[in-house]
Amino acid sequence: MSKNLTSRAEDYSKWYNELVVKADLAENSGVRGCMVIKPYGFAIWEKMQAQLDKMFKETGHENAYFPLFIPKSYLSKEASHVEGFAKECAVVTHYRLKNAEDGSGIVVDEDAKLEEELIVRPTSETIIWDTYRRWIQSYRDLPLLINQWANVVRWEMRTRLFLRTAEFLWQEGHTAHATKDEAMQEAEQMMHVYAEFAEEFMAVPVIKGTKTESERFAGAIETFCIEALMQDGKALQAGTSHFLGQNFAKAFDVKFANKEGKQDYVWATSWGVSTRLMGALIMTHSDDKGLVLPPKLAPIQVVIVPIYRGQEQLDVISEKVNPLVKELRSKGISVKFDSRDTHKPGFKFNEYELKGVPVRLAIGQRDIENGTFEVARRDTFEKQSVPADEVVERVISLMDEIQKNIYKKALDHRASHITEVDSYEEFKKVLEEKGGFISAHWDGTMETEDKIKEETKATIRCIPIDVKEVVGECIVTGKPSPYRVLFAKAY
Amino acid sequence: MSKNLTSRAEDYSKWYNELVVKADLAENSGVRGCMVIKPYGFAIWEKMQAQLDKMFKETGHENAYFPLFIPKSYLSKEASHVEGFAKECAVVTHYRLKNAEDGSGIVVDEDAKLEEELIVRPTSETIIWDTYRRWIQSYRDLPLLINQWANVVRWEMRTRLFLRTAEFLWQEGHTAHATKDEAMQEAEQMMHVYAEFAEEFMAVPVIKGTKTESERFAGAIETFCIEALMQDGKALQAGTSHFLGQNFAKAFDVKFANKEGKQDYVWATSWGVSTRLMGALIMTHSDDKGLVLPPKLAPIQVVIVPIYRGQEQLDVISEKVNPLVKELRSKGISVKFDSRDTHKPGFKFNEYELKGVPVRLAIGQRDIENGTFEVARRDTFEKQSVPADEVVERVISLMDEIQKNIYKKALDHRASHITEVDSYEEFKKVLEEKGGFISAHWDGTMETEDKIKEETKATIRCIPIDVKEVVGECIVTGKPSPYRVLFAKAY
Repeated sequence: MSKNLTSRAEDYSKWYNELVVKADLAENSGVRGCMVIKPYGFAIWEKMQAQLDKMFKETGHENAYFPLFIPKSYLSKEASHVEGFAKECAVVTHYRLKNAEDGSGIVVDEDAKLEEELIVRPTSETIIWDTYRRWIQSYRDLPLLINQWANVVRWEMRTRLFLRTAEFLWQEGHTAHATKDEAMQEAEQMMHVYAEFAEEFMAVPVIKGTKTESERFAGAIETFCIEALMQDGKALQAGTSHFLGQNFAKAFDVKFANKEGKQDYVWATSWGVSTRLMGALIMTHSDDKGLVLPPKLAPIQVVIVPIYRGQEQLDVISEKVNPLVKELRSKGISVKFDSRDTHKPGFKFNEYELKGVPVRLAIGQRDIENGTFEVARRDTFEKQSVPADEVVERVISLMDEIQKNIYKKALDHRASHITEVDSYEEFKKVLEEKGGFISAHWDGTMETEDKIKEETKATIRCIPIDVKEVVGECIVTGKPSPYRVLFAKAY
Repeated sequence: MSKNLTSRAEDYSKWYNELVVKADLAENSGVRGCMVIKPYGFAIWEKMQAQLDKMFKETGHENAYFPLFIPKSYLSKEASHVEGFAKECAVVTHYRLKNAEDGSGIVVDEDAKLEEELIVRPTSETIIWDTYRRWIQSYRDLPLLINQWANVVRWEMRTRLFLRTAEFLWQEGHTAHATKDEAMQEAEQMMHVYAEFAEEFMAVPVIKGTKTESERFAGAIETFCIEALMQDGKALQAGTSHFLGQNFAKAFDVKFANKEGKQDYVWATSWGVSTRLMGALIMTHSDDKGLVLPPKLAPIQVVIVPIYRGQEQLDVISEKVNPLVKELRSKGISVKFDSRDTHKPGFKFNEYELKGVPVRLAIGQRDIENGTFEVARRDTFEKQSVPADEVVERVISLMDEIQKNIYKKALDHRASHITEVDSYEEFKKVLEEKGGFISAHWDGTMETEDKIKEETKATIRCIPIDVKEVVGECIVTGKPSPYRVLFAKAY
C-alpha cells in the first residue's frame, strides 16, 4: 500500500480516512460499523486513559463496573432518555445457537428466547441508577462519585473510524448528590477537567459552554460541553458533562434521608469522553505527511535511525546510541532505536513522519566523525546538527516546545476561524467560504435553530460559559437576543 | 445488614457469597447472571490489571481492541470451537426499538432485523484471526504479540459472583508465529507469567500443568494451566494458555511467506485470565472475620484509626498522624486516615477487618502519652505497641512479612492437601473426607476420566509439568500408566 496520503486540500475526508489506516491507528472490521483499534492507535488511547483516570481520581472519583446488558424495561423508565436511544439499540433476543436440522450450518436456537430482551448499553444511566437505589439510603452515602471505563454500542447507520462507530470505548462518570447545587458544580467541574485534559495533553484548544435544549443529552437538564475546531473548519464535540436533575432518581426511585431525616430524591450528573477524542487529536494537528502527535501522548516520543552500510558501521553507531537510549529512558522519555536492516533510512523517515513521532534523531558516518546527531522535529520539519553531549537536553526541551507549538498553532487557527456576523446573509457566506465558529445573535427558539440547521447544516455548538451579555437581534427573525452563541457545521 | 459472616466451617459457599457482598467487592445486578463490580472490588482488579499488563508488555506484547460482536458465520469456521461455545452465546438479532402500537411500552422493532445475527464475544479467536489475515503476509510480520482487555459473555445457567458470571472481564492474548516451536514456547511462557503473578502478587500458590484432551479449550491442541487450591479443598483453574496449532490459521486462511518465499499457515496461541482470579484471591486467604488481602494488591495497605473523645483530642492525634501519613505515602504505601466521627473505633476495626486491610494503626490518649502507635496485622491478628519513630519501618517490613506469611500459609495448606493414592477406594475416601488434590495413576483414556467424573465429580485438573515418569497402574482399570496426574473437585 502506498504511504502517500491524499492531501488535505484535495479531500479532507479522504485524507483523514487514509491517515487513520496508514498510520496503523484503526481499521474497519468484518462487523458493520465496528472498528479494530490497532496497537499503535491503542497505545495513544491508553495514554489518554491513564491521564484522564488520574484526573478523575484526583477529583475524588472511583472506578467500578456495571453490566453490558440493560433490560429493555429499564431503558423505558426515563421517557426522554428512551426516546433518544431506542432507535440505535442492539438487542439481544436469544442465548443459544444450534446446528440447523437441514445441515445448513449453525442457527439461532429459537427455543432459547430470552424472557425479557436485553439492550447492549448505549450509555449506562439506567442500569447504574437501578443499582444506586440499593446503595443510597442516607446523606452519609452521598456524594457517590463513580466512573466506568467501558464499551458502548449505538447502532449508527453511517460510521467513520473513531468519529462515529457502532461500538466505541469511553468512560462514563455517574455521580449522585444531596443537593442541586452540588450536582451542578460537579457537572461543571468535569467540563473543566475535560478542557484541561484536551488543552494540556492533547494540545487541542476547546471552547467550554452549555448546549441548547435541542442539543442536550437525552434526559439532561443542562449539558456542558467542550467544542474543538478541526482544520477543515468543522467543529467537533470533544466531551460532555450533564446535570441530570432528579430525572433518573425519580425514574428509579432513588431517595435518601437528609440530615433532618426527610426523604428526598437524589441529584445526578453523568459525563463522558470517548475514542472520538482520537479523531479530534488526528484532525487538529496532522498534516499531509501524516500524523502529528503531542509529545505528552506519543507512544514513541523519540525515534533514532542509524544511517549505515554493513554490520561494522552499525556496531560503531550502536556504541554511540545505546548509552543515549538509556539516558533518555532514565528521564522518562520513550525511545525507539530502529536498526532494522530490512528497510532503508528514507523508508523509516517516512514511516515515523506518518506515525507522528515528535522527534527523530539520525546518526551516520559524518555524525560519528563530528560527534553529533541530526535532530529533526516532526511539527516544523526543522533539522539541526546537535553535539552528542547536548542531545538529551535538546530532546527534553523539544518535548515541551513541540507540545506548546502545536497547541499555539491550533489556537491561532481557531482564533482566525471565529467570525462575528450580524446578518443571515453574512452567516451563510462565512459558513460557505471559510467555515469555523460563527458567533451570532439568536432568538432562543428551537424553531429558529431548526430552520438554520435545515438551511445551512450549521448547529449551535454552544453558549460559551464566558459569554458576554450584549443585547442584539436574532440574525434570522430580528427578535431580541441577550448574547451571541456559537454556530458551526460539526462532526 | 449484619457485618457478621457465616463461618467457613458452617457453610463455605454461603461464607463466600456473604463475604463478596459485605466486603463491598461485587453484587448481583438486575440482569440475570451479570454482576456489578463495586469500587472496592474494582480497585483490587485494577491493581491486578496494572501488574499483569506490565508483565505482558515486558514480554513484548502490545494491547489492541477488537469488536464486541462476532458474525455468526465466523464462529462456525473452526468446528470444535463453535461446538464449545454455541450453547452459551448471547445473540443480537435486531438493532432498533419502537413504541408498541397498542401502547404497551417499547418493543423490538421487527422490521429492524439484522441480515446476519451477531454473537456477543464469548472469546475473540474468530474475529481476531479474521483480522490477522489482513495483517500477516510475510515472516517479517511475525511474531504478532497482541493482548486485549475486554468484557466477554457466556450464557451460564448457574452463576456465582466472580467465579462464574454471564459477563466477565478478562484479558485475552492472541499471538501468531512462524513456527510450531515458537508458538509452543509462547504458550508455555504465558503459563509461567501467570504462575509468577499468582504466586508473587496474589500470594496464591499454583500448580502448573497441561490439560487432558477432554478439559482442553475448544480449538486447542494443548492447554497449559495453573491450578490453585481453595481452603475447602476444591481446586480452581486460575489461568490457561493454549497452543492452537494451525487450526485458526486454516479456518481463516492466514498464510505467510517464509524466508524461502514459501507459503505456510501461521501458528497460534491464546491465553487468558479473568475476574475469576478475584474468587481465587478471596477463597485462598480470607477467614471468618472477612477478607485477607496480600499487601501487593490491597487498595488500602494501612488504615489509621484514631481513638478519641471530642475535636480537641482528635486535633492532638491528627498532629501525630498527618506527618506519618505523608511519610508512608512518600514510601509508596497507600494509607487511609479514618477520622469519621459518625462511627466508633470498634465499628471501624470490624469494617477494615472485613475489607482485609493488611495493617491497622490505632492511636489514643495512652499512645499519645507514650509516644506510640498500636500496630495490628490482619493476617495473624497480632498487636504491638510501636514507638512512633519506628512505625514507618515496621509498616514497611510488615508489607513484606504479611505477603510472605499468607503465601506460606496457603502453600502449607496445599502441601497437606496433596494425597497420593493407589486404589479407587482410597481415592473416593480421600476425596470425601479430606478433598484437595489427589495424585493417582490413570490409564490415559477419556472413558476412565468420564467414569471418575460421573461417579465422584472429580476431574483431572492437570498433568503437572514437572511430573515424574513412574510407571504404575490406573486406579480404575489397572491398565499401565506412565505417571500420576492430579485429580480434584473444582470450581
